[in-house]
Amino acid sequence: MKNYIKVDEWNIIEEGFDPHLNKISESIFSLGNGRMGQRANFEETYTGESLPGNYVAGVYYPDKTRVGWWKNGYPEYFAKVLNAANWIGIDVKIDDETLDLHTAKISDFRRVLNMREGYLQRSFTAELPSGKQVKVNTKRFCSIVDDEAGAICYRITPLNFSGNFTFTPFIDGDVKNQDANYDEKFWEEVTKEVNTDTAFLTMRTKKTAFEVCTGMQIAVYQNGQPVEVQSQTIQREKYVASQFTVATKQQEETVIFKFAANLSSENYPKEQLLQHCREVIQKISHKGFDQMLQEQAKAWIAKWEESDIAIEGDITAQQGIRFNIFQLNQTYTGEDARLNIGPKGFTGEKYGGTTYWDTEAYCVPFYLATADPQVTRNLLIYRYKHLQKAIENAEKLGFTNGAALYPMVTINGEECHNEWEITFEEIHRNAAIAFAIYNYVRYTGDAAYLNEYGLEVLLGIARFWAQRVNWSEAKQQYVMLGVTGPNEYENNVNNNWYTSTMALWCLEYTLEAIEKVKNNSPDKFAAIMQHTSFREQEEIAQWQHILQNMYLPVDEERGIFLQQDNYLDKENILVKDLKPADRPLNQKWSWDRILRSPFIKQADVLQGFYFLEDRFDLEIMRRNFNFYEPRTVHESSLSPCVHAILAAKLGDEERAYQFYLRTSRLDLDDYNNDTEDGCHITSMAGTWMSVVEGFGGMRVRKNQLHFNPFLPGKWQSFSFKVGFRGVLLNIKVSKVGVQLTNQSGKDISVVVYDKPYEIKAKAQVLAEHEFAA
Amino acid sequence: MKNYIKVDEWNIIEEGFDPHLNKISESIFSLGNGRMGQRANFEETYTGESLPGNYVAGVYYPDKTRVGWWKNGYPEYFAKVLNAANWIGIDVKIDDETLDLHTAKISDFRRVLNMREGYLQRSFTAELPSGKQVKVNTKRFCSIVDDEAGAICYRITPLNFSGNFTFTPFIDGDVKNQDANYDEKFWEEVTKEVNTDTAFLTMRTKKTAFEVCTGMQIAVYQNGQPVEVQSQTIQREKYVASQFTVATKQQEETVIFKFAANLSSENYPKEQLLQHCREVIQKISHKGFDQMLQEQAKAWIAKWEESDIAIEGDITAQQGIRFNIFQLNQTYTGEDARLNIGPKGFTGEKYGGTTYWDTEAYCVPFYLATADPQVTRNLLIYRYKHLQKAIENAEKLGFTNGAALYPMVTINGEECHNEWEITFEEIHRNAAIAFAIYNYVRYTGDAAYLNEYGLEVLLGIARFWAQRVNWSEAKQQYVMLGVTGPNEYENNVNNNWYTSTMALWCLEYTLEAIEKVKNNSPDKFAAIMQHTSFREQEEIAQWQHILQNMYLPVDEERGIFLQQDNYLDKENILVKDLKPADRPLNQKWSWDRILRSPFIKQADVLQGFYFLEDRFDLEIMRRNFNFYEPRTVHESSLSPCVHAILAAKLGDEERAYQFYLRTSRLDLDDYNNDTEDGCHITSMAGTWMSVVEGFGGMRVRKNQLHFNPFLPGKWQSFSFKVGFRGVLLNIKVSKVGVQLTNQSGKDISVVVYDKPYEIKAKAQVLAEHEFAA
Repeated sequence: MKNYIKVDEWNIIEEGFDPHLNKISESIFSLGNGRMGQRANFEETYTGESLPGNYVAGVYYPDKTRVGWWKNGYPEYFAKVLNAANWIGIDVKIDDETLDLHTAKISDFRRVLNMREGYLQRSFTAELPSGKQVKVNTKRFCSIVDDEAGAICYRITPLNFSGNFTFTPFIDGDVKNQDANYDEKFWEEVTKEVNTDTAFLTMRTKKTAFEVCTGMQIAVYQNGQPVEVQSQTIQREKYVASQFTVATKQQEETVIFKFAANLSSENYPKEQLLQHCREVIQKISHKGFDQMLQEQAKAWIAKWEESDIAIEGDITAQQGIRFNIFQLNQTYTGEDARLNIGPKGFTGEKYGGTTYWDTEAYCVPFYLATADPQVTRNLLIYRYKHLQKAIENAEKLGFTNGAALYPMVTINGEECHNEWEITFEEIHRNAAIAFAIYNYVRYTGDAAYLNEYGLEVLLGIARFWAQRVNWSEAKQQYVMLGVTGPNEYENNVNNNWYTSTMALWCLEYTLEAIEKVKNNSPDKFAAIMQHTSFREQEEIAQWQHILQNMYLPVDEERGIFLQQDNYLDKENILVKDLKPADRPLNQKWSWDRILRSPFIKQADVLQGFYFLEDRFDLEIMRRNFNFYEPRTVHESSLSPCVHAILAAKLGDEERAYQFYLRTSRLDLDDYNNDTEDGCHITSMAGTWMSVVEGFGGMRVRKNQLHFNPFLPGKWQSFSFKVGFRGVLLNIKVSKVGVQLTNQSGKDISVVVYDKPYEIKAKAQVLAEHEFAA
Repeated sequence: MKNYIKVDEWNIIEEGFDPHLNKISESIFSLGNGRMGQRANFEETYTGESLPGNYVAGVYYPDKTRVGWWKNGYPEYFAKVLNAANWIGIDVKIDDETLDLHTAKISDFRRVLNMREGYLQRSFTAELPSGKQVKVNTKRFCSIVDDEAGAICYRITPLNFSGNFTFTPFIDGDVKNQDANYDEKFWEEVTKEVNTDTAFLTMRTKKTAFEVCTGMQIAVYQNGQPVEVQSQTIQREKYVASQFTVATKQQEETVIFKFAANLSSENYPKEQLLQHCREVIQKISHKGFDQMLQEQAKAWIAKWEESDIAIEGDITAQQGIRFNIFQLNQTYTGEDARLNIGPKGFTGEKYGGTTYWDTEAYCVPFYLATADPQVTRNLLIYRYKHLQKAIENAEKLGFTNGAALYPMVTINGEECHNEWEITFEEIHRNAAIAFAIYNYVRYTGDAAYLNEYGLEVLLGIARFWAQRVNWSEAKQQYVMLGVTGPNEYENNVNNNWYTSTMALWCLEYTLEAIEKVKNNSPDKFAAIMQHTSFREQEEIAQWQHILQNMYLPVDEERGIFLQQDNYLDKENILVKDLKPADRPLNQKWSWDRILRSPFIKQADVLQGFYFLEDRFDLEIMRRNFNFYEPRTVHESSLSPCVHAILAAKLGDEERAYQFYLRTSRLDLDDYNNDTEDGCHITSMAGTWMSVVEGFGGMRVRKNQLHFNPFLPGKWQSFSFKVGFRGVLLNIKVSKVGVQLTNQSGKDISVVVYDKPYEIKAKAQVLAEHEFAA
C-alpha cells in the first residue's frame, strides 16, 4: 500500500519525483479514449524503469502460448493487446546534453491528471549534469472528440543559461510487449514518410496483419509566435523523426505542439490508411491544441453530467470514486461492438486477452446506468458476434448440437487461457453472459434485443448447460461435476452451488425468452429455430427435466447453501485465525494448500444472491453471509463489492462501508502492490456498484427504479447519476433524506424505501428519511 | 502399432531399412550398462530423421522450467538427463562421396540386438549416387564389465570398385537436448586433445558443472593386419577427430575399431578425469575388441542366469519378455546409490527427470527377485539420501516438524515437475517409497535396514500423512482432501481410497518399525529420536487417533470401496460403450471431459489390493475388480500388470493373459505410437511382475516364497528365475506341474499351491498340478 497521491476532488496529483513509483504512476495517470490509450510515460528520453504502453483498441497479436505440460484442448495462441508505436516521444537535447529525468536532478516535479476535463499535466525543473537548469511544463490528452488523435503541448524554458535546444519529435515502431512469451517483436514496418513538420509510420502486426498508421505534426512557438525551424528528417527501420534546433535565451519559453493520430486497419481499408491519417493530422493541427483541449473538456464535463458520483465530507473517497469512473469512461465508450473491456483497460499489458466475465458481471451495471443503452447493447453484441466461435470452442471439449461455451479470456472469440481448471472448468462465465442479456432487457426494456441477438446466444448457452450436467444414479438427480466457480480457490469441484444455480437460471430464462420471441416475433422465431436446428419439444422437455431434478448442495443443519459438495469436510477455521504472515494466501501458500483450505477468494454463493436476490429471503441470505464472509479472503479485486452490496441489503451498514473501502482506492493507493502492471479497470465498476447498488440500494424491478439508500456515517451526503429509459436522475442522499432530481424533460416514477414517488420533468422530490447516527 | 520386428528368442531383428521407423529402432536397439547408454544412432553421417542420444548416468541439467501460469511452490528448474558428447561417430567418405544412409540406396539392411550377449550388430549394402557399392558390417556394445567404456567394430568393403576411404572417427560435444525448454545448449568445453590415434574431449555442463571426459582410440585393420595410417588431427570448438585415408581394393575389407569411454566427475576428481579416461582407453584398447566382447557375453549370460524368463510355445511372448528384462538390466545395475531408473532409461530424453514412483512400485519387485539384495538396497538408499530435500519440499507446501514429501519427479532430490495437480497432489508416491522399504525387508529379511536408514524415512513420511489429513466436523472423522491418486484421470479429489488407505498403512508400518528398531537397536533408536526431535508419545498418540478415525469411502450397496468421494455421481457408462474414435481418451478428449468421466487411467483401488492383498478377502477383491476393471482404459503403461496379477489371483486366467499381452511388447510393436521417444523402461518391470507374480503367483509370506501358478493356454511352459535369501531357484511351470530347481548350494523350503516343499541344494522338486485345458 502506497500513500503518495495527493487528495483532491477532481485531480490526481503527484508531487515530487520518485523513480521507484514511476511505473505505478505510469498506470494511474494513463489516458484513453476508448480507441487508444497511453500510459503516462514521459515524452523525453527516460533511461529509468518504465513500462511503455500505447494501445490501439482491437489490435492484437496471437502470441504462441507458453505451457509447461500441454493438455488437449488448450489454445495454440494467447491473443494479447499490443504495445503499438510510440507517438508521444520528443527527445530533448540541451546543447550537448540529453534531457533525461533519470540522470538529471529533478525538483518541483508535479503530475496532475485532470479528470474533469480529461488531460494530463506535468511540470518539473531539471538540473542537468552541466548545471544547466530548465523548467518543463507539458499537457497532453487522448481526445474523446477526435478519438483517433492525441495532442501534446511541451513547454521548456532555460532558467540559468541561454543555449540551443535540439528537439526530436519521433514515432518509434520498434517496440515490444513486456509479456511476449518468447521475447518476440510483434510488429513489422509497412511504410514510412517524413517531411519537415509531419511524419507517418505504418506498422503491421505479424500473423494477424493489422495495420496501424501513426502520424504526427509538429508546430513550434516562441513568445507566442510560430517559429520556422530547419528540420532534418530522420528515418531508420521502424522509426521516423524530424529534428530541429532552436536558439533560446534564458527565461525564454519554447513550446512544441505535437499532434498525433493512430489509425487502425480495423476502421479503414489498408490502402487508405495513410491518406486518412494525413487527414486526421491535418484536421487536428488545423484545429490547434487549445481548441482541441476546449472540446475535450466540454465532452468530459458532459460525460460527468451522466456518470458522476459526488461525496460530501470525504474527499479521499470522492477522489477514489471519480478516478474509477474516469478510468471506466476512458476505457470503453460503447461506439464499436468489436471492442470490449480488458481487466487493465489501456493502462497495462497484463491479462493481455481483452474480455473476461468481468464485463458482463461488473461493467454492464455501470454502463447501463451511466451511458446510452447502445453502449451496453454493443457489449452484448460483441458476444453475439462470437457465438459461432463459442460453439466451436464447446465442440473442442466434446459438446454437440450447437452448445456454446464462451471463452474465459478472449479478444477475437477464441479462447486464450490455458489452465485447465480455468479454461475448461470455470464455465460459470456462460451464465454471466446470459445474465447480462437479462439485465440489459430488464434495465432498458429493449425486449427486441432478444429477437435480434439475445435468443440465439441463450440457446447456445442453455444447450451447453443441458449437456454439461449428468444424471447421477446415486442421487437420482442431475449433478454438475468438475467445475471451478468464481471462487477460484477451489478447482474441479462437484456441484458448485453458484454454477449449478446459475445454470438452472439460464435454462429458465432461455425458456422465457423462447416464449417472448415466439409471441412477439413469430417469423424471427421460426428463423432462429431453423437456423439453430432447435428440436423445440425435445430440448425443452430435457431442460424441464433438469430444472425439476437438479441437485443443489445444502447444509440443512446450518440452513445454508453449500459452496460445493463436501465443503464442510474442510478444516473449520476462519480468516481471523490466519496469521498476518500468511496473507495474501496466493503469495504465501502453495496451490494445494489454498485448495484444501476453507478460504474463499470471492464468495460465490453470495455472488449468486447478488444476481438472483429476489429468489431468496433475507434470513437465508443473512445465514449464508454470516457463514461465508468470515471465510473469505477477498483476494480477488472483484470480491468486496458484492459483499458491500449484500451487507447493505442486510442492513449492516458498517460492514458495507468497510468492503467499499477495500476497492475504492485500490489503484490510487496501490493496495495490492501491483498497480505498476496497470489499473484494475473492471473492478472499478464494482466500486461504482458498491455505492449505487450498495449505499444507494438501487434496483430495477418491474420496469421501475427502486432506491433504498443509507448514508455512510462518515459522509455528509453522496449523490449519483442514473440514466433510465430516457430520464437522467440525480439522486442525492443526505441527512435529510433522498433528494431526487429529474434532469430530463420526461416524467418518471420511482420507488424509494418502498414508497412510490412521481418526479416530473426537471422537478425535484425529497423522500425524507432519518438515518441512524 | 507396428509389426516390423522379426521374431526370435534371443535377438531383436530389423530387416530392411525404413527411414520412417528409424527413430523407433533407435529406441528399441538402445544399449546401456547402468553408467551410460546409447540410442541406436548410426556411426556414419545420417542426414535423415534421428534422435541422437548418449546419456551418462547422474549427469543432469537444471533446465529453466517452462510454465504457462506460475503457481506458488512450483520448482524453478526441471532437471533433465543430458544428451552427452557423441562418442560413436565415424564419418566415412568414399573417394569424394559421404556415406549417408539417407542419400544412398540401401539394401540388405539388417540390425540385430543380441540380448543374450549384449551387443548390437548392423549390416547393409549401400549404393552411393556415383554407383559405387559398399558393404558395411558393424558391431558395438556398452560394456558391463568395463562400465565406462564402449567399443565399435566397423567393417567396410567396396563391392564394385577400388578406391580411397577417408575415415573421420570423432567425438562431438556440440550436442543438444531435443527437449531443451528454451533451445539452450547445456554443455561447454573444458579441454580437448587429439593425437594420431587417440582423442579426448572434456565437456562441462552449465550451472551444474558436471564434467564428462570422452575419450577414443582408433585401430585400423586390413586383411587381419593392423594398418599404419597417416592421421590428420581435427579440432574445433567442442569437437575432436582424427582423419585418415586408406586405399582399398575391390572386395577388400577395412576394419576400424573405435574404443571409447565416458568418465564423469561424479566418480573422479575433475582434475584427474582426463588421466583416468586415458587409463580406461589404454586398458580397453589393449584388451582389444574381441576380448571385450567375450567378457561382455559372459557377463550377460551370467545376468540371464539370474533373471531369465523362458517361454515355450510362444516365441513372440518369449522375445517380448526377454527384451524387457534386457532393458531393465541395461538401465540399472544397482552399483551406485546415487543413480535410479528413469521411465525411459537410457533410451530417450522424455520425462527427463529420473525418478518417479515407478521405481518403488514397479521396479523394486523385479530387482529384488533377479539381483543381489544390494541392488534394491541402493534404490532405497537413494531416497534416504534425499530425505532432507523431501523435508524441505514439504516445508515449501506448509508442512512442519520434519514431515517429508518426496518429489514426484526428481534427479537430485528436488522436485522437477510443475503441474499442481501432480506436483502438489499426487502425494501417494510417499506411500510407495515407504512400501518399498517394507517390501525389501519382507523379501530379504534385512531388518537392520530399518535401523540404518529405513526408520528415518518412514518417520518423515508418517509425519507428512499425519499433517495432510484434517478433522472433518461434518464427518467426525479424518479426511484427506485435494489429492490425485495413481488414477491421474481424476484431479484434486477428496478421500481417494488408495491414497488414504496407503497413508494409514504407512502410519501402521512406521509404528511397527519404531517398535522393531527400539527393541533391536535401542541406541540407534535413541539417536534417531533425538535427531528427528520425535515427540514419541504425542506423535504416536496422534497417529493412533488417525488410524482409529480415518474416513474411507465405500459403497455399502455394491460392497465396494469408492475410488473417491462422489465417484458414483459420475455417468454410469463403461469402456465398452466408448466409440473407438474416442480412444485413447488422452489424445481425443479435453482434460475436463476426462476428469468428469467415470473412466480410469489405472485403477487405484486395485493398486491398493496389489500392495495390501492380505488385508482383503477374495470376495471383496472380486467385487471391486468387477466394478473398476470395466471402467479402466489402461492409458498408463503401468496399469495392465496390476490387473493381470489381480485377475490371476481371482482365477480369471484368460483376462490375466490378455492384460499381460497389452504390455509385453509395448515397445517392440510400438503399441502407443511413442517408442521413438524411448522405451517404457519402468513398465517393463510391470510385465515381469505379470508373469512372475501373476502367472507364477509368487508371493513372499512369513519369510517364505509361495507360488500359485497357472499356465496360459497358449504356452507349453514358462520358467523364471528367482533369487531369495542366497538361493537361486528356477521355477518351471508346464503341463505336468511346477518344477522347482534349486541352483544354489543351500536348501530352501517353499510353498506351492499352499503345500510346503523342501528343495535341497542343487535338487529339483516337481509339484504336480493339472491345469485347466
